[in-house]
Amino acid sequence: MRWFLVAAVLTLLTSSQGILTTLSQSNGKYQYDYATVPFLAEVFKLLISSFLLWKEFKVSSPPRMTTEWKSVWSFPIPSIIYLVHNNIQFATLTYVDPSTYQIMGNLKIVTTGLLFRFFLKRRLTTLQWLAIILLAIGTTTSQVKGCGEASCDSLFSAPVQGYMLALLSAWLSALAGVYTEYLMKKNNDSLYWQNVQLFGSIFNMARLLLDDVRVGFENGPWWRRLLSGYTITTWLVVLNLGSSGLLVSWLMKYADNIVKVYSTSMAMLLTMVLSVFLFSFKPTIQLFLGIIICMISLHMYFAPAHMLVGTLAAAAGGVTSPAANTSKEIAVDGKEEP
Amino acid sequence: MRWFLVAAVLTLLTSSQGILTTLSQSNGKYQYDYATVPFLAEVFKLLISSFLLWKEFKVSSPPRMTTEWKSVWSFPIPSIIYLVHNNIQFATLTYVDPSTYQIMGNLKIVTTGLLFRFFLKRRLTTLQWLAIILLAIGTTTSQVKGCGEASCDSLFSAPVQGYMLALLSAWLSALAGVYTEYLMKKNNDSLYWQNVQLFGSIFNMARLLLDDVRVGFENGPWWRRLLSGYTITTWLVVLNLGSSGLLVSWLMKYADNIVKVYSTSMAMLLTMVLSVFLFSFKPTIQLFLGIIICMISLHMYFAPAHMLVGTLAAAAGGVTSPAANTSKEIAVDGKEEP
Repeated sequence: MRWFLVAAVLTLLTSSQGILTTLSQSNGKYQYDYATVPFLAEVFKLLISSFLLWKEFKVSSPPRMTTEWKSVWSFPIPSIIYLVHNNIQFATLTYVDPSTYQIMGNLKIVTTGLLFRFFLKRRLTTLQWLAIILLAIGTTTSQVKGCGEASCDSLFSAPVQGYMLALLSAWLSALAGVYTEYLMKKNNDSLYWQNVQLFGSIFNMARLLLDDVRVGFENGPWWRRLLSGYTITTWLVVLNLGSSGLLVSWLMKYADNIVKVYSTSMAMLLTMVLSVFLFSFKPTIQLFLGIIICMISLHMYFAPAHMLVGTLAAAAGGVTSPAANTSKEIAVDGKEEP
Repeated sequence: MRWFLVAAVLTLLTSSQGILTTLSQSNGKYQYDYATVPFLAEVFKLLISSFLLWKEFKVSSPPRMTTEWKSVWSFPIPSIIYLVHNNIQFATLTYVDPSTYQIMGNLKIVTTGLLFRFFLKRRLTTLQWLAIILLAIGTTTSQVKGCGEASCDSLFSAPVQGYMLALLSAWLSALAGVYTEYLMKKNNDSLYWQNVQLFGSIFNMARLLLDDVRVGFENGPWWRRLLSGYTITTWLVVLNLGSSGLLVSWLMKYADNIVKVYSTSMAMLLTMVLSVFLFSFKPTIQLFLGIIICMISLHMYFAPAHMLVGTLAAAAGGVTSPAANTSKEIAVDGKEEP
């Protein structure tokens, strides 16, 4: 059950990420360039992973490392997908409003399930499929705008390209996740060596550069903006993001994408609950309903089957199926005085 | 699967009940006393049941009928409970608004499950419990007010007595249903004889009289108002209510309360969908989400266990449990090239 512990910690980190990011703003806006945060987080991951890899060399048996190019070149692929994804996201938000984008983002849960099945060839029971759909429904329910809130009938009013792009980005982020899992599991290489090969920092640099090009360097080159306006909180955001990244790759190697999806969904709900207390965010009944739905989904997915459906005898016989009730057994059953 | 067919027909009748009732109004209000409808429906049920009972006598073997008082006197109990329930409901609505009452009405699904288990001593699997909770969540989700709709933050703002009474009426209507099932199944008497003994019409008379007393006979005695302002549609409402009543008692004898609860919940959703087309009722995303949740719940409750969790081998081993992934098997699993 080590994976469960790691997933729980990831949930806490991810939800505190949301809180910290909000706290890192001063009077509602960022005093620093947020795009620099993922870059520094990647640098942090690189440093930690290299250090741990170096330590692995100190111990008796050297770590397993596959170094031929054929293997190495495949590691940047997830980062490339993410880079494309981020630009798609950018384009999507020119068509649909953020809340609609957030709602549609829950499709990622289902697309991850589909790629998990058909790309990684991992089998899921019908119940687990139902659980995955339910998780997506639950997170969506929690995000449904309450009454009185602004821009709520905008949900179905965006141009169709908007929905197409949102759907595409759901597929892309699922693909990036599933491909990472494939890379982490394709051999028994050291996790740290695999992390180093992901080259996250390089791709984040590329992203920063792209942002600069997009606005024609009007804010100067990114390395000038780096660290400007950083506070302790900003550094906490960086460390938090970096550590959750390390936990994610651990989960990708020793657990799987579905565990990660549950962990991040629960984090989203936890963040909403915490926001009620920290930022006097108004709790809605749909948040309450969403939490229960996701809890049920979690139980459906991970609880051992015999716990859910009782003994096989019961399972096969269908103890409580009313079809069985048309017999004498009813009269007997019914005779039990209350 | 005869019970399934009956449940399906009941669903259609129940949802058309909602539609017909709305159609029976002229410019938004009733031209007739709605309280007379259940009374006539009960009279209809009495006539049909007596006729079918009489026909059973014509055939070779006479129908099974238990006639000692000890048995007969227990049949009016559900009607008495309903009579109390109706008055509780009346009191509740002086504290909470109708939409809150409707939302809280979904608790009836859970209370029915609890009484089904502890009063009728019927076992349910964990999965079936989750399904029942999910059904209540699903119907509630579909009823959550969309943005811009009036009186939406009123949900948690009613005095506590209101919620207590709403809770009590959830327990009472569950008890009435479960007690009816107990009566219908406690012996193999003819269904029609059991229907006759329910004395529904008498209790509806009592209710009409109570209403008259409550308003000090200002509208004259109920029998004067009977049939006044009735149209063809009103008669359809009566026939529809009567026939669904007959189907319900059939389900109580040959299926059970849970089947009935599913049938009426699905009917509620169907009515909302039909209202979108018939009364240009604005569809909300929460209606869409609610429908999917209830469909999943339906599948979880009634699908045979082996269909949901696959072979017992799979069930026991937990094929996709990430806990199993920390072994070599992953490397193998992962090696499959995409």
